[in-house]
Amino acid sequence: MDYITIIGLSAAALGGISLFPQVLKVLKTKSTKDISREMFLILACSILLWLIYGILLKNAPIIIANFFGFVQALIILFYKTKNQMKKRT
Amino acid sequence: MDYITIIGLSAAALGGISLFPQVLKVLKTKSTKDISREMFLILACSILLWLIYGILLKNAPIIIANFFGFVQALIILFYKTKNQMKKRT
Repeated sequence: MDYITIIGLSAAALGGISLFPQVLKVLKTKSTKDISREMFLILACSILLWLIYGILLKNAPIIIANFFGFVQALIILFYKTKNQMKKRT
Repeated sequence: MDYITIIGLSAAALGGISLFPQVLKVLKTKSTKDISREMFLILACSILLWLIYGILLKNAPIIIANFFGFVQALIILFYKTKNQMKKRT
């Protein structure tokens, strides 16, 4: 594997785990006021496309990193939407 | 350009613009309490690696998307760090 591929895979792996501290923070505080729902909506779409890209290329590291990234983005979006609905009712 | 490459480039482009709504929210409210600094630190590292990857591959869409993504991540980190320092002093 050449070093350019290693850089790309490291970038994908870091991207996949980056949401984890935010998920922990949301689960701990249940507060999502300062989080942009639009950001996580667009990010979830981006991660889903990376996941499809990984599946089409049969590239396991891209699939694994983006599968976990997608689940994490959904957890953050779930709490954000839940909090927004609470405020409206 | 085959459709797999188009999916990959779309994923990279969406990832690059995803931070924009969060930047707008931070600039508007100046509040970053619910944002995880660790998330944006790891994400900035990931975006920087994507930028290097794009430069090494001489791939303009990857370079452009991640250049803007990196600047946006730095703006969010700047406000988060500034707010955290204020609370400590």
